[in-house]
Amino acid sequence: MRDMLGREEVITVESALELIFSNLSPKLPPERSLKIDESYGRILSRDVFSPEDLPDFSRSTVDGFAVSASDTFGATEGMPAYLNIRYEILMGKEPDFELKKGEVAKIATGGMLPKGADAVVMLEHTQQIDEGMIEVVKPVAPGENVIQPGEDVKKGDCVLKKGHKMRPQDMGVLAGLGINDVWVYERQKGSIVSTGDEIVPPGRPVKPGQVRDINSYNLAGLLLDAGAIPLIKGIFKDEYNIIRDVVEKSLRDSDIVLVSGGSSVGTKDVTAQVIDDLGRPGVLFHGVSLKPGKPLIGGIVNNIPIFGLPGHPAAVSVCFEIFIRPVLRALSGLSKVRFKMEKRTIKARIARNISSSPGREEHIGVYLEERGGEIWAVPILGKSGLITTLIRADGTAVIPLRKLGVEEGEIVEVRLF
Amino acid sequence: MRDMLGREEVITVESALELIFSNLSPKLPPERSLKIDESYGRILSRDVFSPEDLPDFSRSTVDGFAVSASDTFGATEGMPAYLNIRYEILMGKEPDFELKKGEVAKIATGGMLPKGADAVVMLEHTQQIDEGMIEVVKPVAPGENVIQPGEDVKKGDCVLKKGHKMRPQDMGVLAGLGINDVWVYERQKGSIVSTGDEIVPPGRPVKPGQVRDINSYNLAGLLLDAGAIPLIKGIFKDEYNIIRDVVEKSLRDSDIVLVSGGSSVGTKDVTAQVIDDLGRPGVLFHGVSLKPGKPLIGGIVNNIPIFGLPGHPAAVSVCFEIFIRPVLRALSGLSKVRFKMEKRTIKARIARNISSSPGREEHIGVYLEERGGEIWAVPILGKSGLITTLIRADGTAVIPLRKLGVEEGEIVEVRLF
Repeated sequence: MRDMLGREEVITVESALELIFSNLSPKLPPERSLKIDESYGRILSRDVFSPEDLPDFSRSTVDGFAVSASDTFGATEGMPAYLNIRYEILMGKEPDFELKKGEVAKIATGGMLPKGADAVVMLEHTQQIDEGMIEVVKPVAPGENVIQPGEDVKKGDCVLKKGHKMRPQDMGVLAGLGINDVWVYERQKGSIVSTGDEIVPPGRPVKPGQVRDINSYNLAGLLLDAGAIPLIKGIFKDEYNIIRDVVEKSLRDSDIVLVSGGSSVGTKDVTAQVIDDLGRPGVLFHGVSLKPGKPLIGGIVNNIPIFGLPGHPAAVSVCFEIFIRPVLRALSGLSKVRFKMEKRTIKARIARNISSSPGREEHIGVYLEERGGEIWAVPILGKSGLITTLIRADGTAVIPLRKLGVEEGEIVEVRLF
Repeated sequence: MRDMLGREEVITVESALELIFSNLSPKLPPERSLKIDESYGRILSRDVFSPEDLPDFSRSTVDGFAVSASDTFGATEGMPAYLNIRYEILMGKEPDFELKKGEVAKIATGGMLPKGADAVVMLEHTQQIDEGMIEVVKPVAPGENVIQPGEDVKKGDCVLKKGHKMRPQDMGVLAGLGINDVWVYERQKGSIVSTGDEIVPPGRPVKPGQVRDINSYNLAGLLLDAGAIPLIKGIFKDEYNIIRDVVEKSLRDSDIVLVSGGSSVGTKDVTAQVIDDLGRPGVLFHGVSLKPGKPLIGGIVNNIPIFGLPGHPAAVSVCFEIFIRPVLRALSGLSKVRFKMEKRTIKARIARNISSSPGREEHIGVYLEERGGEIWAVPILGKSGLITTLIRADGTAVIPLRKLGVEEGEIVEVRLF
């Protein structure tokens, strides 16, 4: 988009995100069933209900003696209750006896309480008199040191909600409830289309003037990091029909399409034209007030988001974090988390003055250093085309839209890689 | 280990970790070669050197005109330099001409400089007079807006070091250097042995007194989360010969062995005996001043770490984070990171008073809440055997060894799940 003077019109990051999200209808990936031991990190596509009570028997939470609590009432150090050890409860077995008044059964943590018992006295609060008798020096209340049937989970309880991302303990709990399979969303597929007449695949020798395809592999890694499956489509000539063809095919097999621009002046216009021609609403913005990343194109075709990314690897990384990761997340099926743990940012002191133009958000590659117990972000300076900057950086320091720069020692937000 | 009064002797978490690490010789996993697009998250087992200069030609970093810088010296808004557009440089092509005095060539970002040019004037600093001429209003210095051959990476430079964990941008940079394969360490294998006469697999109905195997699946998820491959060995009876047999086999196919204890009183002694009998140094500690997690056994057999874990799922999670994750990390080949980004802890205010016994480190399941811009950690109370606590928790708040508890509003460290 150009204004009346022919200059490229750019919009703020905020407006660009708003444009995308207001035009995107939530379209979740298809679901599939997975064994629980394959479900780590996957997002549930259905609520999970417990098929049974957990535990389904009265269970001791300590090592000690199963008792009738009333047999211990009033017991003290000075006036202990004397009780007869009549039984030992075997792990995993249902006791086939009933305790009578004055009788106890030895029980281990996790053991099943016998009939006639309603509490467990901890081993530590007893003294063994002889093989057949203990003294109890502290009374227990009914239910003490016991988990009642269904106290942990009741049959029919919703244990994990649709949209929840499976953690290790969730796998354990589902196993504990006898649930072997869960329904999850398929991982999202992201097509990566590399364009640029100067770009060659990494396996081939470069001729003068040519460079190898960095962005396809950077983007593949970023998609993997975001939980998606990258589909590297290859390198395509900067020609309308060729780009249109591969983008059209990608729209059919992907949840998101990323066209990584060559550096040719014409490429961006080709990509924008293709996006506009393939479906509604087409291009939503072309150019954002972001550095690096200004030439970014964002669009939606038939409810599939599509981005035309700048050619600079550093710009690709920044655009991915700011635009593509949130879009993937919104379309992943992941529920809004109650507490945002995933925001991978820290506060650090910037290690030198950095000037910035007002009216754009600027991301500067930094590495982190600890100085006197504080974290400092040291800007990595260098020409904008250098890819080694990306290797040395721990993340990017963000200079917001409305700031003219930051002064040494000022606190900045660092988005970690 | 018991003291002279027959009480279990426990050691601090710090001493236990010290015992493990002082007895463990670093034994790195075997290495293998991987395609770069499969290398995300893997740890390099060899330094990576650049096979070539990057770029290997003088390359423009902007869109504009390739010039001889001397043709622009002295140019101002009032007294521009007038230069002839003689050529256009095609992306990916080596220019087959040489610029003469007063001549410029149109060039895009990434284009190769022609002979006779040593700088690039940005499009923004020029005014096109007609099809064949521009005026330049600002001089450029030699080398300006140009990356020189080898300026980004020189042939033979070490671009990534052994022990580095591959990030997306590293995949991109290696592709850019024409490197298709990297040597990485194999992922570590962790055997999971579940013991306990009351434990049944998740697929089977439970009889009264039995519970399903939670820990194998929780541990499998934790191993996956730590980058390792879980080998679920199954559920074994609490008998010396049976446990010895499976542990002995696991020592042959794993980098670490995790025996998850049933709750039977005898189990721990069986596990400890097996560890001691299978090789040196055997059991290093039996019991730590940690809650939950006190019954933990740590040992090493023939340089392979082996842990006897308590039966409580919550204790398993805590012991994994404190002991097993650091051990896996030390044996993964990952180099010491310059800045510890991976410490997944945050500070939060505790939402209620919690008392703790001095002399033990206590971990309390908490969920996090934002209240007035601050993060609060709300303890999840409940009987110790409840597994739903694990599902509701975002992490654990840590009450250090030497504290008697924390008061509502006090800042605590929360280890995030």
